[in-house]
Amino acid sequence: MKIALAQCNPTAGNLARNREIIARFYRSARRAGAGLVIFPELAVTGYPAGDLLLNRGFQKEVDGIIHTGLAPLTGDGGPSMLIGAPYESNNHLYNSLLLIKNGRVKPVQFKETLASHRYFNENLYFAAGREPSTIQLGDQSAGIIIGERAVEACGNPPPPDGPVKRLALKGATVLINPTASRYYYGRQAAREKGLATLAKRHQTGILVVNQVGSQDGLLFGGASLAFNRRGELLSRGTPFKEELLLINLSSLAGSAPKVVPPVQEDTGWLFNGLKLGITDYLEKNRFTRAVVGLSGGIDSAVVAALAVEALGAENVLGVLMPSPYSPAPSIEDALLLVKNLSIAHRLLPIENIFHAFSSLLNPGGKLNWDLAEENLQARIRGTILMFISNREHYLVLTTGNRSELAVGYSTLYGDMAGGLAVLGDLPKLQVYELAHYLNRNRELIPRRTIEKPPSAELRPGQKDEDSLPPYPVLDPILRLYLEENLSAGEIMARGYAEETVIEILQLVERAGYKQRQVPPRLWITSPAIERRTPSFR
Amino acid sequence: MKIALAQCNPTAGNLARNREIIARFYRSARRAGAGLVIFPELAVTGYPAGDLLLNRGFQKEVDGIIHTGLAPLTGDGGPSMLIGAPYESNNHLYNSLLLIKNGRVKPVQFKETLASHRYFNENLYFAAGREPSTIQLGDQSAGIIIGERAVEACGNPPPPDGPVKRLALKGATVLINPTASRYYYGRQAAREKGLATLAKRHQTGILVVNQVGSQDGLLFGGASLAFNRRGELLSRGTPFKEELLLINLSSLAGSAPKVVPPVQEDTGWLFNGLKLGITDYLEKNRFTRAVVGLSGGIDSAVVAALAVEALGAENVLGVLMPSPYSPAPSIEDALLLVKNLSIAHRLLPIENIFHAFSSLLNPGGKLNWDLAEENLQARIRGTILMFISNREHYLVLTTGNRSELAVGYSTLYGDMAGGLAVLGDLPKLQVYELAHYLNRNRELIPRRTIEKPPSAELRPGQKDEDSLPPYPVLDPILRLYLEENLSAGEIMARGYAEETVIEILQLVERAGYKQRQVPPRLWITSPAIERRTPSFR
Repeated sequence: MKIALAQCNPTAGNLARNREIIARFYRSARRAGAGLVIFPELAVTGYPAGDLLLNRGFQKEVDGIIHTGLAPLTGDGGPSMLIGAPYESNNHLYNSLLLIKNGRVKPVQFKETLASHRYFNENLYFAAGREPSTIQLGDQSAGIIIGERAVEACGNPPPPDGPVKRLALKGATVLINPTASRYYYGRQAAREKGLATLAKRHQTGILVVNQVGSQDGLLFGGASLAFNRRGELLSRGTPFKEELLLINLSSLAGSAPKVVPPVQEDTGWLFNGLKLGITDYLEKNRFTRAVVGLSGGIDSAVVAALAVEALGAENVLGVLMPSPYSPAPSIEDALLLVKNLSIAHRLLPIENIFHAFSSLLNPGGKLNWDLAEENLQARIRGTILMFISNREHYLVLTTGNRSELAVGYSTLYGDMAGGLAVLGDLPKLQVYELAHYLNRNRELIPRRTIEKPPSAELRPGQKDEDSLPPYPVLDPILRLYLEENLSAGEIMARGYAEETVIEILQLVERAGYKQRQVPPRLWITSPAIERRTPSFR
Repeated sequence: MKIALAQCNPTAGNLARNREIIARFYRSARRAGAGLVIFPELAVTGYPAGDLLLNRGFQKEVDGIIHTGLAPLTGDGGPSMLIGAPYESNNHLYNSLLLIKNGRVKPVQFKETLASHRYFNENLYFAAGREPSTIQLGDQSAGIIIGERAVEACGNPPPPDGPVKRLALKGATVLINPTASRYYYGRQAAREKGLATLAKRHQTGILVVNQVGSQDGLLFGGASLAFNRRGELLSRGTPFKEELLLINLSSLAGSAPKVVPPVQEDTGWLFNGLKLGITDYLEKNRFTRAVVGLSGGIDSAVVAALAVEALGAENVLGVLMPSPYSPAPSIEDALLLVKNLSIAHRLLPIENIFHAFSSLLNPGGKLNWDLAEENLQARIRGTILMFISNREHYLVLTTGNRSELAVGYSTLYGDMAGGLAVLGDLPKLQVYELAHYLNRNRELIPRRTIEKPPSAELRPGQKDEDSLPPYPVLDPILRLYLEENLSAGEIMARGYAEETVIEILQLVERAGYKQRQVPPRLWITSPAIERRTPSFR
């Protein structure tokens, strides 16, 4: 028996579109001779559908799609379908897996361990389901576990008494795991290692079907997996791409003729993830073109280069908005980038607008050189980009990186204004890595852009390092604090100066209010997303 | 035995300040002869402390406050303290209630039913606790339930087999319920009714101690409650104010000499809630002054009047930023408001700035009269207000109401730019109610401001009703969709035209991306906060 894993890219909430995608995958699987097609968790709605799940009209539409849009596909005895959808039973809504066969719909599993991450707060919408169940698959018994938590989040390797063991004790020799697991850098390797251990320990084949795509900044990596009972990896879906994988059920029992080597996550994963993030966000929101403000600095250069890879040079517009304090070399660097990328550009100096504000707001028009004036320049630029966006339907890509956003080194309604924060979860040092990766074939990001000291260029001679510690110090401290949740003392014990640690932690806590107004960012490196802390001084 | 209910206003995350508040309430209770002081849920950290709870340094500081900051207060045999705090036991963190007595700390209850609302996603931080327990209180047995869910959210009236019944079966004659329950309009009456029913049914007195104050837009209403075993209300804390309530334990057993009448929530509750919301947000974030852009319209007038009530006229600055398309009467209305409120103002016409942008962005400087230019005016105004904020440390209060924000009738980085969206959860029709309430003693909001048709005044002759249905139609449709989660069909069945319903629902779903970048708003009317839906077209 051939099983098809449908690694598809639904749009959360767009039921009509998702139905088409599901039907397309189903038809391909049928042509390939599959007996069963497995779709990801909640594939009918896309993940995460958020508060739409609370609406009764939405739930009714979901039911309609399932019974009149999907069930008939299987009506003539074609392959069966295992598909994730919200499904109501006994007045409770469950995150369910449905078996659709011969035109009939039957729920076979209600998710037991609901996710409680931010954005994945499934307790808001769903009741918790029952003990994982099994279904008959050819001559084998297959256990079903929906989602990533039950399989992965219980530690790596997972504890021996988890649901996989319970299913193995019930006689399951295959584990089916439809999931919508978001990707972040480094995660795939850990996941594969944990699943291989599980498969081997409990002597079950494992089929993971993961969603692919980006939804409001959340990245789903695909990279669906098939392990045999020895824990050998038989197949891995292409990361960050839709794909139909075909697995012979019998291959899970034997030894693998050819084992897929363990994954190596390099900068290419960041690149592919961010590229998909841009393409998907624009497409799902019906934009085809993007505009980027170009300063001559590395962040905006990397964003523009990524946008070109994602959308094509003809769909990217670079806008140079020099102020009287922009050094001439920066303008040259931006123009060189435009040339390297072959994108259209506009040169829109902000001097007159800045003076118009200044003469209204500064008595006598005399500059104060204070924060208000620095932010004013950034806000004029944000306003210009939004004007172009509103008039010509370009999406504004913002350019701030995670390091500067975390400490609040960014201007609300200025450089933070836009539709998608492409680098918003990328530490500055990784922005440099990405720049080198983008230049791997030929120089796209100008060499001087990479080599010069970073600066916001909002006052003459300004450098990031005047206000912030150097990034090789800042980035690791931020990681220890934001990802590993260490205390100030524990961070100092890693060799960082007390004064620096205290200063950075204070900056982070004081910038919490800005985090609430960042546009969606592509979450590519952080295990935790959208940190929420109380704002107080 | 006298019991003190400490209806206090902690700042989420500000441990040093909270310790002072707790000590102040404790000393007052001691002076009043109390034997026990009960504080709200998680009073040590304030609610909600968010992702600070994940940090090991924060948890260490919490432990320090408990053991060296609070325990010693009770060291000389003073009153005992029941206080909420995150507390670690067997490597799990619990939302706990601690009994502090004679200098010693003992956890007496770990919250069983964790909240899973947005912002209250306690599953992210805490393990679920055990069955509610009892403690000895004088000659009585007191059951403890932390938080609102176990007591209230199970339906109104609550189901007969809830935790209160289980505690009553264990012999509890008093129920202690420390909570941090957010307020929204209409909730207090429902809560009191449900609790009275519970008390009577299970023959237990009920003591509810609720947090008061505002935290990043969430309002906690106080209004702590004491019911006797007959379900008669003996005492209600003042809504929206800190207060120490004293209750004689013996009074819970007998019949009430004087029953407190049921609550009547009128516009005064909205007023007091919003007023506290402004005061608290500024104070907790160390601002003393606020700036409001005044258009002559009702929203900005109401915000300015509320700010004056909250902060004093001397701390409110009104800024008039007319464009060439601002009708003269609007400027007059704004000036009359300034006079009525006795606040300082500045008149900063945006014409020159608008022309500077226009001549840069419009070929030949010729206006297009399109959305880009409408938004440009709003963004120039937002930029001016932020300039004043940055230079002079005024907090910008934004003025958009819930009706227009919900349908996206607002400009990102324009009128949406600022620190606190005062009316962001208030339907337009309730803004009018509030205006009348503010005028109850004398005319503050000019009569013409109330009576003229609402307009954004971004083009000559523009009216809200050119783009939107009239508010008496829009507001109820929004309520049915956003609060009651009805389908389009169900809303039409209430008598609204199909075309209107479809149009509004589409506007709402398409404005989802704007909701992500609204500043914190004072959640005063919605049971659900911060609706999150996928963005797609």
